[in-house]
Amino acid sequence: MADEIQRPLDTLNEAKGKSVLVELKGGIQFMGTLRAFDIHINIVLDNAQENRGGEVIRKLGRVFIRGDTIIMISPSEQ
Amino acid sequence: MADEIQRPLDTLNEAKGKSVLVELKGGIQFMGTLRAFDIHINIVLDNAQENRGGEVIRKLGRVFIRGDTIIMISPSEQ
Amino acid sequence: MADEIQRPLDTLNEAKGKSVLVELKGGIQFMGTLRAFDIHINIVLDNAQENRGGEVIRKLGRVFIRGDTIIMISPSEQ
Amino acid sequence: MADEIQRPLDTLNEAKGKSVLVELKGGIQFMGTLRAFDIHINIVLDNAQENRGGEVIRKLGRVFIRGDTIIMISPSEQ
Amino acid sequence: MADEIQRPLDTLNEAKGKSVLVELKGGIQFMGTLRAFDIHINIVLDNAQENRGGEVIRKLGRVFIRGDTIIMISPSEQ
Amino acid sequence: MADEIQRPLDTLNEAKGKSVLVELKGGIQFMGTLRAFDIHINIVLDNAQENRGGEVIRKLGRVFIRGDTIIMISPSEQ
Amino acid sequence: MADEIQRPLDTLNEAKGKSVLVELKGGIQFMGTLRAFDIHINIVLDNAQENRGGEVIRKLGRVFIRGDTIIMISPSEQ
Repeated sequence: MADEIQRPLDTLNEAKGKSVLVELKGGIQFMGTLRAFDIHINIVLDNAQENRGGEVIRKLGRVFIRGDTIIMISPSEQ
Repeated sequence: MADEIQRPLDTLNEAKGKSVLVELKGGIQFMGTLRAFDIHINIVLDNAQENRGGEVIRKLGRVFIRGDTIIMISPSEQ
Repeated sequence: MADEIQRPLDTLNEAKGKSVLVELKGGIQFMGTLRAFDIHINIVLDNAQENRGGEVIRKLGRVFIRGDTIIMISPSEQ
Repeated sequence: MADEIQRPLDTLNEAKGKSVLVELKGGIQFMGTLRAFDIHINIVLDNAQENRGGEVIRKLGRVFIRGDTIIMISPSEQ
Repeated sequence: MADEIQRPLDTLNEAKGKSVLVELKGGIQFMGTLRAFDIHINIVLDNAQENRGGEVIRKLGRVFIRGDTIIMISPSEQ
Repeated sequence: MADEIQRPLDTLNEAKGKSVLVELKGGIQFMGTLRAFDIHINIVLDNAQENRGGEVIRKLGRVFIRGDTIIMISPSEQ
Repeated sequence: MADEIQRPLDTLNEAKGKSVLVELKGGIQFMGTLRAFDIHINIVLDNAQENRGGEVIRKLGRVFIRGDTIIMISPSEQ
């Protein structure tokens, strides 16, 4: 976690293929494997599941999430 | 699902002609066959139906959905 | 409905001169004949009527609707 | 009303100098004579009056309305 | 009021140095002398006062108002 | 206050180094010394304090405020 | 704190590697070490923790926060 990132998108690049927590506007939360992202922060997750209040409410496989609904993306710690 | 996608829009490209779940702001949910999309994530679904709370509330045939209302698009698993 | 559309705006182009259902943010619904649209999805309807809860609440003749309030446009089936 | 318009802004152009109904986000409604508009759908009305619930609540003379608050503009029928 | 304006911003230009009513999203209302504006409809008022429900609630001197919060600007009649 | 400003940003330029009142969407209010701004109206305040309902609720030192949350900036009168 | 900054982003540049308080729309608050930012004010924090009502509710390690949800960033005083 002390590695040198220069730009915010470097963090997303490092997180590719790893598990991430994604929070959307309106309290929606997804977990899954980050597969792709672009400069609009549109992202694709694999093995995605939606959580609310700490519980899994849906398993969705692959999801495309539109960037402008995203508040925060956090790579899982290892 | 392990195929290599490079950019988020690749996921939408692969989903063309297949059934997708689309969630919009405000809790609106559509299912249908993804027919077309563009870089604004405007999409067209065929055989679209609107669901709320797990029930089909309307069958609409073809629908054009404006990208900026979309939260998430998930291809159905096969 | 099986015709080949390539881009979402092709769907709007095919719907010109035909009856469409238009849903706006905030639960507003219009029906009318699609007369024109542009890349911002600004549209013009003729013989427009506004519906709420399945009832016609206003007849408006021609209306210009600003694209960024539009959620969905569905051509009527024939 | 059967005249040929090609683009949505043609409708606004034809409505110049005529009475229009303008609906804004949040249920605000203006009536007045359309004097000018631009590509952002910023508009100017003369002899503007604000209506709520079918009643005139204010007479304002000339008003500049910022485009991004506008939902719909409808020329009065003659 | 019958003078010929071509574009919406002409109305703001004519109102420079005169008293205007400015309404913002969320029911906020300012009155003051229009001193400057730009294409984003950012404006500067002098001798500005904020009104709510028809009463002066604050006197502020000079204010810079960000354009994207503005709904409507109306020059006072003379 | 009668000095000639040509563009809205001139007002912010004149206010540099002086005390300003900044109002944000959602009723948040900051006071502080305007240190810097850019064309997006991102600003930096020094000796910033947050007020709600006329009371100081926090002292924050230096703050960067994102422009698109800003409603209004008013230089303190001297 | 009296050092000369010219543009708002200079403040974020000076805060790199230091502890910052970040407030988001909807009352969400993060603290962490500012690792990176870009012109959209997308940021990356390390050792991030989310606070609500003055209490730590989550520890998240590294987080990417999308710029358009950010209201304010304040470097901790030393």
